[in-house]
Amino acid sequence: MKKHNFSAGPCILPESVLQKASEAVINFNNDNLSLIEISHRSQSFVNVIEKARSLALELLGLENKGYKALFLQGGASMQFLMTAYNLLNKKAAYLNTGTWSSKAIKEAKLFGDLIEVASSKDKGFNYIPKNYEVPGDIDYFHCTSNNTIYGTQMKSFPETSAPLICDMSSDIFSRQLDFSKFDLIYAGAQKNMGPAGATLVVVKEDVLGKVTRQIPSMLNYQLYIEKESMFNTPPVFSVYVSMLTLEWLKDLGGIEFIEKVNKQKSALLYNEIDRNPLFNGVVNKEDRSHMNATFTLANENLKEKFDTLWKEANINGLHGHRSVGGYRASMYNALPLYSVQALVDVMQELERIA
Amino acid sequence: MKKHNFSAGPCILPESVLQKASEAVINFNNDNLSLIEISHRSQSFVNVIEKARSLALELLGLENKGYKALFLQGGASMQFLMTAYNLLNKKAAYLNTGTWSSKAIKEAKLFGDLIEVASSKDKGFNYIPKNYEVPGDIDYFHCTSNNTIYGTQMKSFPETSAPLICDMSSDIFSRQLDFSKFDLIYAGAQKNMGPAGATLVVVKEDVLGKVTRQIPSMLNYQLYIEKESMFNTPPVFSVYVSMLTLEWLKDLGGIEFIEKVNKQKSALLYNEIDRNPLFNGVVNKEDRSHMNATFTLANENLKEKFDTLWKEANINGLHGHRSVGGYRASMYNALPLYSVQALVDVMQELERIA
Repeated sequence: MKKHNFSAGPCILPESVLQKASEAVINFNNDNLSLIEISHRSQSFVNVIEKARSLALELLGLENKGYKALFLQGGASMQFLMTAYNLLNKKAAYLNTGTWSSKAIKEAKLFGDLIEVASSKDKGFNYIPKNYEVPGDIDYFHCTSNNTIYGTQMKSFPETSAPLICDMSSDIFSRQLDFSKFDLIYAGAQKNMGPAGATLVVVKEDVLGKVTRQIPSMLNYQLYIEKESMFNTPPVFSVYVSMLTLEWLKDLGGIEFIEKVNKQKSALLYNEIDRNPLFNGVVNKEDRSHMNATFTLANENLKEKFDTLWKEANINGLHGHRSVGGYRASMYNALPLYSVQALVDVMQELERIA
Repeated sequence: MKKHNFSAGPCILPESVLQKASEAVINFNNDNLSLIEISHRSQSFVNVIEKARSLALELLGLENKGYKALFLQGGASMQFLMTAYNLLNKKAAYLNTGTWSSKAIKEAKLFGDLIEVASSKDKGFNYIPKNYEVPGDIDYFHCTSNNTIYGTQMKSFPETSAPLICDMSSDIFSRQLDFSKFDLIYAGAQKNMGPAGATLVVVKEDVLGKVTRQIPSMLNYQLYIEKESMFNTPPVFSVYVSMLTLEWLKDLGGIEFIEKVNKQKSALLYNEIDRNPLFNGVVNKEDRSHMNATFTLANENLKEKFDTLWKEANINGLHGHRSVGGYRASMYNALPLYSVQALVDVMQELERIA
């Protein structure tokens, strides 16, 4: 029996996508060749990457608005570097909402002056800072829309005249936003999009070409745009599975539809966390993530009992990040509501028997 | 019926590997979860990457000799950049044997003075330069062991006191060499190792840490070594399939065994190219690659007939690289001898009917 998979990433993907991906590894497109054995320049694969790129723009509502979608390698961590390499001339501003923002800041510091406009480090990153000023004279403002580790999520984004860059690795395609407010969005595939190994970059072309440094080819967005995301061999399998997942989302009704489901799932779980005296939510209520719900046991002595219960209920991946402990239920797009119900049942069962 | 796959890369992989990979996409390790849905920090996946790393060193005969094996992202193209970023202080020497060497030179030029010790560009890269001098006062010497596009292969490597770096993307694990002569070997997975999306780097630790520039995390070999190849989420699927392919090779008898098969295959094809008056080999005989055989038709009018014949014979991927034309038969480790025989049969059939 398939597990209820609350893993934080790599994470659950739609069953139908896994089925098609598995078949393609044996025989792709009925070509009597495996997907992973064919040339990336073959029409069969060019069709795949073109479809993935156009679906990404379509789902985000960014078609014909000057944006390009690219499938790169290296995850969000490589984007910490690439964004700075391509866009940081002198000074940039960052909002620090946790581990990933901190890492982005660290990498960008090699390339210019960084202003940390605000940080929630003082309270272990359990909230999203508000009411900060974004300076005017910066090359860009960078933020992380959802913090996977702490379970916080930005519900609004600052108004700024500077280019807005956002790491949306863990909540892209999960909720409606005016994506045209952003000039560059990036996301590792391994949450709502596909397997590890591909990274989506959606960039407004007119923010590029403004730095004076020479950019190595493999770090140069403009070169990838010129080469239609195929400067060198792309991560074929990860791009294909991303395409399938984006297709799945479109067929379901796109972001508008999945946002409703995601709200139902997170409401179900947060209601139980708030109601059940055995559990405490970790973060500020208004900043709670719809993707990653973090919580702790009110009484640590119940840990063994709770861990046994959820494992018996066929639940996977509920431990908190190794850096913070506690519990974390990641409820990405492909997680069904009944999986959240299974977790809530276990939490209520613990209350009954504790 | 499965095709005879002469694709230059991504390329043929062993049937048994494809079968296991396909199953793992549905249910990995009988854990009732897909390989691509589990945490890369789970013991199941840590076992995979550790096994892949140790198999790589074992097959190359580099265990306990101060080397580390890493699975990174970005292909050989990213290594053009990373090798220079990590090892080029002032001056390095490169041998230019074609497109890939030229690209490596281009990227490294951003970081120091480059000396091109020799180039075969004068004759369209149809031979491997010999009798060149490697200067003494360099940070490293860089070469490309096999040129996929032109079909040349280095049969010997220069003696030098400088660190020896080699791009072995298209012939790693295909022939016996004294790999301990090299200080850094890199290879995109998508030839003899696995699917696109992973890159093997085998580096002797003591050549690192000698440059003064600050190295961004995602480009820093030492950081990947510290983090045991898991600084960030690795390309899970590509690493797993690479592990399966390395296991397959070890079970067959390792490089010693596969080298014999590879010699049989290339001898069969080159003998036919030399014997059959309708075909001409493209490169110097002594520099011919055992992996990629390039040839042309003596009479271009036979092109349509030949193309029809090989396609009818269920052969795939025989066209030359888009930059050079002609034909190219790539005979990587997983290609069976009978596939080469199928091609030779077609060449002889053309001779009969032409």
